[in-house]
Amino acid sequence: MDNRNYEQLVEQITDLVLSRLDANYCPTFCSTDVQRIVDAGAERIGIVLGESATAGDWASLIDHTLLKPEASEADIKKLCEEAAQFGFASVCVNPSWVKKAAEFLRGTKVPVCTVIGFPLGATLPDVKAYEARRAIFNGAREVDMVINVGALKSGDDCLVEDDIRAVADAAHENGVLCKVIIETALLTDDEKIRACLASKNAGADFVKTSTGFSKGGATVHDVSLMRQTVGSALGVKASGGVKGIDDARAMFEAGATRIGASVGVKIAQEASGVKSNVVVGSY
Amino acid sequence: MDNRNYEQLVEQITDLVLSRLDANYCPTFCSTDVQRIVDAGAERIGIVLGESATAGDWASLIDHTLLKPEASEADIKKLCEEAAQFGFASVCVNPSWVKKAAEFLRGTKVPVCTVIGFPLGATLPDVKAYEARRAIFNGAREVDMVINVGALKSGDDCLVEDDIRAVADAAHENGVLCKVIIETALLTDDEKIRACLASKNAGADFVKTSTGFSKGGATVHDVSLMRQTVGSALGVKASGGVKGIDDARAMFEAGATRIGASVGVKIAQEASGVKSNVVVGSY
Repeated sequence: MDNRNYEQLVEQITDLVLSRLDANYCPTFCSTDVQRIVDAGAERIGIVLGESATAGDWASLIDHTLLKPEASEADIKKLCEEAAQFGFASVCVNPSWVKKAAEFLRGTKVPVCTVIGFPLGATLPDVKAYEARRAIFNGAREVDMVINVGALKSGDDCLVEDDIRAVADAAHENGVLCKVIIETALLTDDEKIRACLASKNAGADFVKTSTGFSKGGATVHDVSLMRQTVGSALGVKASGGVKGIDDARAMFEAGATRIGASVGVKIAQEASGVKSNVVVGSY
Repeated sequence: MDNRNYEQLVEQITDLVLSRLDANYCPTFCSTDVQRIVDAGAERIGIVLGESATAGDWASLIDHTLLKPEASEADIKKLCEEAAQFGFASVCVNPSWVKKAAEFLRGTKVPVCTVIGFPLGATLPDVKAYEARRAIFNGAREVDMVINVGALKSGDDCLVEDDIRAVADAAHENGVLCKVIIETALLTDDEKIRACLASKNAGADFVKTSTGFSKGGATVHDVSLMRQTVGSALGVKASGGVKGIDDARAMFEAGATRIGASVGVKIAQEASGVKSNVVVGSY
């Protein structure tokens, strides 16, 4: 039995386990919704960079993020309350908090995003796929997976692509959005391009710059390069080191359609302030 | 079906898959070997801190470690060659490199160690157990798992213990050693003690200070506290920030029985130098 057959077997068994666990198990999204979300991001950018942008417009493009391992249940609850209040694109939490976050967000329109193989990306494809399926079962509607950086550095682009596809397929079967973290701080420009192409080939919905746990975060150069590489079909998420509305605006102008940040509330508040002072308009 | 039943089901299915994959699948260790390894560590400390310590004695207590996500196949090969040359306790690599490292080390006595739920520890217990089983299937003989720090911070010590037990059980069924990384840099002394007790209750073989990816690494204070808490039955691994033989000796004196370090070769070479200069002997 080769690796691909093994992975198919794991997938089948996982699906069977999940279906037996809950006969009513049914994702709330259908797969056409995924592309709609990606497209909607691009449409909203125009609004956010225009005169009439509200705090809500900005918030709708930000994944409100808390991934510190020491975050407690009280921290996650606060994050979810803020997300509901400001209308962020999602809350982004570690897999062990997905179920709890989904409970806190019940009755709101804010979906739960989680991270897979995070932050090193150095585990096996079927482990990442299993982690994604379990997170989706617990309520995740977006999954941000980390590529196998070591495989990319070793020239094994096939493994990089298969690894992404394992998670993207698990996500899409359940109508869930899949973003691919390429960890730009560790890559040369050539490697960034190869990682983006592997993401596109594997059917990912977004490419994303950074985990926030490595040497550096999103840069205008990297977001621009990623946008040029994936074209208009995929979203680009800028994450890591976005400290306020000026950083966020620079990322959107470079081609980002989503921001990942722990300072979402600050950005939304700055957006309100900027609007009331009528400073926006030069874009 | 509750979580425990779910985890049992996953476990049974995983075992079945693994057994069908390879009818000859049989771990090379038996479970009594695990305790023997822990005991042997304690015995070797006396040798290492004594006059007659050789570079090999020192090396036999060091997990030769490379966990950077950007490590390439060439880096892993070099690590394994060094481990075979110096006789390190193990090589410690990320899960995606276990199979390759086991190939590189075939014919040597050096086992492969890997990391589980690393470095945040913030995923589900059954995902950690699945990752451990897959790594063991690929050739890992020691697994270093990260606790759920967020659960500990939230006072959910039951989840912390169940999470450890899921991995420890998966390890022990295959005669594999289980070390528990408590990430001391994020914990208060009270939390360190609770994490050590949970590890002991869950049947772990070692407690380990640090991932090397957080705010700080091993300290003499923490190693001493962990040794006092677990008594003599468990090993204590000091990892993160061990930069040479002086650091290593301080850790052993505080109660460590294993060191995790990327500078194993330097320590072994320093041990040779120290020995030839007959500086050892004051311990």
